[in-house]
Amino acid sequence: MIERNDEYYMRLALKEAEKALEEGEIPVGAVVVCEDQIVAKAHNQTERLNDATAHAEMIALTAAMNALGAKYLSECTVYVTLEPCQMCSGALYWSKVKRLVFGATDEQRGFEHIGCRVHPQTDITRGILKEESEELMKRFFLKIRK
Amino acid sequence: MIERNDEYYMRLALKEAEKALEEGEIPVGAVVVCEDQIVAKAHNQTERLNDATAHAEMIALTAAMNALGAKYLSECTVYVTLEPCQMCSGALYWSKVKRLVFGATDEQRGFEHIGCRVHPQTDITRGILKEESEELMKRFFLKIRK
Repeated sequence: MIERNDEYYMRLALKEAEKALEEGEIPVGAVVVCEDQIVAKAHNQTERLNDATAHAEMIALTAAMNALGAKYLSECTVYVTLEPCQMCSGALYWSKVKRLVFGATDEQRGFEHIGCRVHPQTDITRGILKEESEELMKRFFLKIRK
Repeated sequence: MIERNDEYYMRLALKEAEKALEEGEIPVGAVVVCEDQIVAKAHNQTERLNDATAHAEMIALTAAMNALGAKYLSECTVYVTLEPCQMCSGALYWSKVKRLVFGATDEQRGFEHIGCRVHPQTDITRGILKEESEELMKRFFLKIRK
């Protein structure tokens, strides 16, 4: 049996990011897990939805709240392939997630790099499968340059 | 004919905030205006939608992008009764709005107070009908204390 650890869930988030890449979106994926159950998965859809706010985390958080019928996600862990931006970290703040696990850092727009915050109760783990996430980003930028 | 200035549109945003108050929501309203046309109006719906991210601005921005079929709102002014939070200012950042006009300040969670930002191209006007917005907030807190 496969152990369901941070790497396991981050691989699922990376699968979501790959879907985004195939669709011509910036490759970011997110998975929300509550007591070892996946309650939401999403990838960036800003192009498809024509909505600059349709980041993977925003879609996944709203889907998780709908699935659980709960306004707060204080029992949930959110896995994201890239360090969340100001908007998404604000959404994580409001939803009071228990844990945030992210892959690659975003030195330009990542919330920690620009001095934004998540909820003080949220525990943060960084760098899980970061190389895989960075690789997807590189493939995206190579693709759009062509 | 009524002049359609900042006060005019902020009164409409305040009407949205009043709707929120009637529904037991934190009274915040938002209106998006593009070339003197209202393209979206919304109020806070976190309780009704059971979604901690359903702030007035988030709903109004997505509605405006849908209405205009545009991913960016670089010709739009967003009127909000209260200083936006980290999440909503992040959404304003991504949607590249031309102008942000807000009423009351939020010293605890307002984006300017906690050091977050909107897009550098966004022009900001503060304090329009701020007393009216503050009054609605006071009524909300009196109501929930009862």
